[in-house]
Amino acid sequence: MSKPIKQIILDHGSGGKASQELIEKLFLPFFDNPFLREMNDSAVLSLGDLKLAFSTDSYTVNPVIFPGGNIGALAIHGTVNDLAMRGANPLYLSVGFIIEEGLSGEMLETIVSTMQKAAQEAGIYVVTGDTKVVPKGQADKIFINTSGIGIIKDGVDIAGQNARPGDLILINGSIGDHGMCILCQREGMSFNTPIKSDTAPLNKLVEQILEVSPHIHVLRDPTRGGVATTLNEIAQQSQVGIELWEEHLPFHESVLGAAEILGLDPLYLANEGKMLVFVVKEDAEKVLEVMRSHPYGREAAIIGEVRSEPQAKVWMRTKLGSKRLIDMLVGEPLPRIC
Amino acid sequence: MSKPIKQIILDHGSGGKASQELIEKLFLPFFDNPFLREMNDSAVLSLGDLKLAFSTDSYTVNPVIFPGGNIGALAIHGTVNDLAMRGANPLYLSVGFIIEEGLSGEMLETIVSTMQKAAQEAGIYVVTGDTKVVPKGQADKIFINTSGIGIIKDGVDIAGQNARPGDLILINGSIGDHGMCILCQREGMSFNTPIKSDTAPLNKLVEQILEVSPHIHVLRDPTRGGVATTLNEIAQQSQVGIELWEEHLPFHESVLGAAEILGLDPLYLANEGKMLVFVVKEDAEKVLEVMRSHPYGREAAIIGEVRSEPQAKVWMRTKLGSKRLIDMLVGEPLPRIC
Repeated sequence: MSKPIKQIILDHGSGGKASQELIEKLFLPFFDNPFLREMNDSAVLSLGDLKLAFSTDSYTVNPVIFPGGNIGALAIHGTVNDLAMRGANPLYLSVGFIIEEGLSGEMLETIVSTMQKAAQEAGIYVVTGDTKVVPKGQADKIFINTSGIGIIKDGVDIAGQNARPGDLILINGSIGDHGMCILCQREGMSFNTPIKSDTAPLNKLVEQILEVSPHIHVLRDPTRGGVATTLNEIAQQSQVGIELWEEHLPFHESVLGAAEILGLDPLYLANEGKMLVFVVKEDAEKVLEVMRSHPYGREAAIIGEVRSEPQAKVWMRTKLGSKRLIDMLVGEPLPRIC
Repeated sequence: MSKPIKQIILDHGSGGKASQELIEKLFLPFFDNPFLREMNDSAVLSLGDLKLAFSTDSYTVNPVIFPGGNIGALAIHGTVNDLAMRGANPLYLSVGFIIEEGLSGEMLETIVSTMQKAAQEAGIYVVTGDTKVVPKGQADKIFINTSGIGIIKDGVDIAGQNARPGDLILINGSIGDHGMCILCQREGMSFNTPIKSDTAPLNKLVEQILEVSPHIHVLRDPTRGGVATTLNEIAQQSQVGIELWEEHLPFHESVLGAAEILGLDPLYLANEGKMLVFVVKEDAEKVLEVMRSHPYGREAAIIGEVRSEPQAKVWMRTKLGSKRLIDMLVGEPLPRIC
């Protein structure tokens, strides 16, 4: 970990180990401050009497349009979700477009109209924006950055550092859909039922589960690096062990099938409409019930438990009863997934 | 203006007429809301007792490193300045990197360390970030988005809509330096004294002039499209006429010389450390004095005046006493200038 970074490689954008290394070697040493050092989906800022969440993400997904959505939907949902993962109520978004010369007006309109629908569903406003156009060949079609602001209610304290032994871990539905959708598009694989991205705004669902339990400790959306990498981050941040229960993990058959053909572990595939919820055991069933009654939580499940040790480790209790260590993502199976 | 946009061209990113058309035809119809419709450098949001400014910009400048700065300096200064142009005190920035596979670690470190120095000088924190890496050839080296939050004090109301007949117009120094610097780099032109970008954070200077005058109506940084385009925007937003005084316009000789060789009007060249200040006549000398005593305002000048008509027009009173209409930028003389 002590060698300087010679060259940026695709792995540095994977959301996995190399991304962590880039942040630790380059960004943290320069930008070091308590907000950034927390390494959560959003920074939490105290301004006057308000607690604000502030978050940013750039979207470079290829292809731009895919089953279940397009880059515009991702750009709204992704930042809305990053804010919601701190328990914030997302309010306002900025949008920055970088467009390659020659993009069709029709495609841009499709993207922008999808963004507007997504913003409306999430109940947020796009209040400020910027557009840059770069010459043909100097970008690929369109990249979008969204940044967002939300308000966190008094008493809400949700962060990757807050997992506690005994917490149960829930997910609001099937794992790996977005990643496998993009992969199939990219590889030209087709199935009887096409695999659709799960891209969705989760803020309303978060609002509902916060209403039934004041003991939600961690929320995080397992995007790049998937469920496996996200749980490893939380295990590190909270210095706890995490046990996953294989038989409870919700997968769509089509995703499992494609993963088997491709030799990929769907636990490392990106999700864009899923969240991991860490909650005290006593409230888990209540939260599960609320999730299952919401359109974005129908297939919700309790998938694991937090242990006091081994610290900073994630493992799976397999269907056969054995234990298997689940590491962070190493390498980049699929660039430009989001 | 009623035909749909068939294809995105470089002009759409120029900051000039085509940019305005893109916003009016595509972004406003979909995202329409009172914040966005204002079309100022930042949105102003009321949250609890607070008035927040929120702004975003993506930076794609080519070359990445240039005399006087690099893309990292631009990315911090640009968003700090957009916040300051609403009279806000900039506090927190987000950073989103899109990096082309293969960028050298050294170059990234140069950029990031420059960003940190710029952030420190401006007195702001980079609190949240995101990094995407795209395969070689799918972006050019590095693009950076920054978004920012600032607080606006009670009683401060600065916007492009607020220019009033009788206001004098000041600028804090020489015009066109950044644009000409990038152009010379791109064209391989060199001079005895290289033309340096003026990139600089203006928030401290804004703070100082707001202290001496409560009657500052408009602040705006003439970036893409230059002084000419920016003044046209303000003339449209405030429904006033603007008269510029040629003999008072501050230019560096080197910029004028290069502009003559290239057949360009420096009034359309981008600036990255300049602002236009509209203030009531009575306070203009006071503001000028404060500006001239600040490192980023040594060459400040009073360059024009607001008239009641002709509305939405900008013209120059030339050295010879004649009048020349100054239109918005049409066309894109220089893509990827910021």
